Amino acid sequence: MKLGAINQLLDGELIGGSDIEIEGVASIADSNETDIVFAENSSYLDSALKSRAGAILAPTTEKERLPHTDKAIIYIEHPRLAFVTVLETFSVPVFAPEGIHPSAMLGANILLGEGVRIGAHVSIGDGTVIGERVVILPGVRVAENCVIGAGTILFPNVVLYPEVSIGKRCRIHGGCILGADGFGYVQVGFALRKVPQLGKVRIGDDVEIGANSCIDRAKTGVTTIGAGTKIDNLVQIGHNVQVGQSCIIVSMTGVGGSARLGNGVVLGGQSGVVDNISIGDGARLAAQACAISDVDPGETIIGFPGRPHRERMREYAATATLPAQIKKMRAMEKRISELEARFKLDEIRNPN
Amino acid sequence: MKLGAINQLLDGELIGGSDIEIEGVASIADSNETDIVFAENSSYLDSALKSRAGAILAPTTEKERLPHTDKAIIYIEHPRLAFVTVLETFSVPVFAPEGIHPSAMLGANILLGEGVRIGAHVSIGDGTVIGERVVILPGVRVAENCVIGAGTILFPNVVLYPEVSIGKRCRIHGGCILGADGFGYVQVGFALRKVPQLGKVRIGDDVEIGANSCIDRAKTGVTTIGAGTKIDNLVQIGHNVQVGQSCIIVSMTGVGGSARLGNGVVLGGQSGVVDNISIGDGARLAAQACAISDVDPGETIIGFPGRPHRERMREYAATATLPAQIKKMRAMEKRISELEARFKLDEIRNPN
Amino acid sequence: MKLGAINQLLDGELIGGSDIEIEGVASIADSNETDIVFAENSSYLDSALKSRAGAILAPTTEKERLPHTDKAIIYIEHPRLAFVTVLETFSVPVFAPEGIHPSAMLGANILLGEGVRIGAHVSIGDGTVIGERVVILPGVRVAENCVIGAGTILFPNVVLYPEVSIGKRCRIHGGCILGADGFGYVQVGFALRKVPQLGKVRIGDDVEIGANSCIDRAKTGVTTIGAGTKIDNLVQIGHNVQVGQSCIIVSMTGVGGSARLGNGVVLGGQSGVVDNISIGDGARLAAQACAISDVDPGETIIGFPGRPHRERMREYAATATLPAQIKKMRAMEKRISELEARFKLDEIRNPN
Repeated sequence: MKLGAINQLLDGELIGGSDIEIEGVASIADSNETDIVFAENSSYLDSALKSRAGAILAPTTEKERLPHTDKAIIYIEHPRLAFVTVLETFSVPVFAPEGIHPSAMLGANILLGEGVRIGAHVSIGDGTVIGERVVILPGVRVAENCVIGAGTILFPNVVLYPEVSIGKRCRIHGGCILGADGFGYVQVGFALRKVPQLGKVRIGDDVEIGANSCIDRAKTGVTTIGAGTKIDNLVQIGHNVQVGQSCIIVSMTGVGGSARLGNGVVLGGQSGVVDNISIGDGARLAAQACAISDVDPGETIIGFPGRPHRERMREYAATATLPAQIKKMRAMEKRISELEARFKLDEIRNPN
Repeated sequence: MKLGAINQLLDGELIGGSDIEIEGVASIADSNETDIVFAENSSYLDSALKSRAGAILAPTTEKERLPHTDKAIIYIEHPRLAFVTVLETFSVPVFAPEGIHPSAMLGANILLGEGVRIGAHVSIGDGTVIGERVVILPGVRVAENCVIGAGTILFPNVVLYPEVSIGKRCRIHGGCILGADGFGYVQVGFALRKVPQLGKVRIGDDVEIGANSCIDRAKTGVTTIGAGTKIDNLVQIGHNVQVGQSCIIVSMTGVGGSARLGNGVVLGGQSGVVDNISIGDGARLAAQACAISDVDPGETIIGFPGRPHRERMREYAATATLPAQIKKMRAMEKRISELEARFKLDEIRNPN
Repeated sequence: MKLGAINQLLDGELIGGSDIEIEGVASIADSNETDIVFAENSSYLDSALKSRAGAILAPTTEKERLPHTDKAIIYIEHPRLAFVTVLETFSVPVFAPEGIHPSAMLGANILLGEGVRIGAHVSIGDGTVIGERVVILPGVRVAENCVIGAGTILFPNVVLYPEVSIGKRCRIHGGCILGADGFGYVQVGFALRKVPQLGKVRIGDDVEIGANSCIDRAKTGVTTIGAGTKIDNLVQIGHNVQVGQSCIIVSMTGVGGSARLGNGVVLGGQSGVVDNISIGDGARLAAQACAISDVDPGETIIGFPGRPHRERMREYAATATLPAQIKKMRAMEKRISELEARFKLDEIRNPN
């Protein structure tokens, strides 16, 4: 898409090449030459100007400050809202033929909203409710008494166990398993007896869940994922976990049973949260970090066992100097011994 | 279920509110107000009294010791056996219609036990043997010459490669892949040539395997999972691994090729066991621990590289003080230098 | 297979028991009594003689050096090429009936090569191109406009999103998800807005990908896996990643978005590579290591944050002595204090 066409769509003021080809949208940090980004204020705009982005959406108020720049800029009153418009322009609808494929197998008492699309070899259990414009791609397995909100997409081979409820406009990627049994046993002698998992799973609106991720049903009660939360591939969410809104959970992260995540929490790749702890609003875990006790709101945790970022970085730096410190200690010890030896010698020479 | 009804079922002696609503069973540590737990002796009973459990099964012999408590207690001769009875009361049977769904595709020479239930879009290869009351849910793929023991459940979209054998009363959750090739190559020049994986997989009785977990077939011989072992979601078991009985393998754990686990081993979440090592009976790995050499029976291992719990905790504590220690060293060094300087001064003043 | 028969096939010179039963092939390190291995030179031959291998392929030039050994040896001009011949003898073809199963659902404009085998309940989207002798096992989901090279096998329940391209002779194991959306969002206020993932996935020739692994499509452009690379189970490859040729990526490893791996890179089990960094040719990550910045060619990285193997091992050794060092420091401090005290005493006694 030419930048000129984007400008026309937004009704902004373009300074720079209207012929620039824009292929996608990005955050400033993640942008390249064919991306358009947005900057809400002077500081973001300065970052955007230093980034690889091909074009920037900036507030009209910045125009005077920047008469000439190397980058193409579209000045516009509300860059954030304009950016959403551009995002939507680039979105691609998922392809799925209209209606219900003849090879799909639907149980009894299923409520189907208008415009539902159901692909080949899908099976849906009795009593499930499917909202308007839901897309269910081939090979998906939906069990009994599930609820799937309007506009949600289930990608191929997703599995929903009974009584899983999914909100509106969610995207559940291929191979996800929602509602499998939580992992609970009681030791009776040497044997492990299964604790029945009688609860449910509830996913909020606008949630995306990556490929082959798993969200377990609660023992009793509900495992919940808050609205707007985004989960990457191969993530594990244990039974009775409560995840807040607008969290980001990166690939291969595990959240133990009954853990509670606030809003806006970010869990880095391959990180872990042990059972039964709380992660405060806006807290962050670095990649591979493991939280083994409650994390305060806004705190950043790193390493195993997870510790606050600043303390742990000091530890890492100190540890890297450790072999040198040990050498230094040996030298110091030698100097002390010499002092002691000479002191004794001195004493012998100067007896009181 | 009312506590009174549970007491009636067990024929015990209930002290406390028979109207308490019990919704599930739990271990003492994991219990909440609507759970019933069991305590085999005084010490467990004391823990149970301090827990959040709503009711306790306790031995009759404890009754005299505890005339009055805040918690409801059912006194009974064998609390452990009574607990199993309660567990079974709360278990929910998996829903699956009787018989074989017309869309299922069965190969030649398949032996079907009585009461088998096979769901929509299931495919089963030639020569497979399926025991009594086996439940195979929609989308499951069973290859040639597999054996599935009586009472076992395969949840949706499970995949069995050829010659996988599963015991009785197992639960294999959605998306599990059993019997895929072990990961073995030989470098021939720059190229990696595949080592054919000619072996099998054998799963014992009463094993549960979580969603999207993978158990590889052996190179030659058999990858085995012992009876009563419980495996969580997204776990990887390599080729030729031998897992003992009643082990607990928590989510996202990986066990390298030809490793051997004894009985009653517990592997914490995201932990790892490298190739070819042995983990003794009852040994434990903490979350994210990595065993890189043999682990003694009963030992607890923590961190990377995995080290015994007590030593490693001392290390962690020491490391946390490291920045302070380095400061202290600098102070000590200064004091030594001062001593040396003054000592020399002293020598000058007191030449012998 | 008797060793005599293998020798006859290779037309080599066998010294030792022709009745030895050989069940498989292996690398020297991984061999057992029923395996045959190959040794290209004296040093490998010495290792092979100390290994558990049942038989060795060795170069004719070594025969004079080793008149008698305990192990059976086949002397042959090119042991490496002979080994490939043996490998192929032991390979097992995947079972799949000829033709297209009547329950498979094929879209419009699909190009099918000769000898293609398509199993039960497979669905294939419009415009996909399938090469000669491709095998697609039951339950596989191929979306629109994919390309699958000649001789490739898709194991049960594999999912290909649109526009995924796979090379020749690949093996994609059960439950793999190729081409799901990359994980990218832009924060607009408190909400996370999805960055459309408009790119593709391209897998080279002779690639093997383990069960339940995920390879994300690019944001724009292509996520690529180089020819001959081997990927284990439950691996995550992020959007826009470039993986070179003949790499080995062990189970449960994650590679962050836009990371670049050279040729012959080895990533150990549960290791991680963060976004946007480069791993040089032949570099290695130990199990559970996490590369957080560029890694030089040939370098070996260990731990979190990933550091060169030699430095980190020194650190680990030093850290293990840390509690002892701290004790020693206390002792040293005491000695310094004593010296200071005595020095002052001495001063008092010897005023100048």
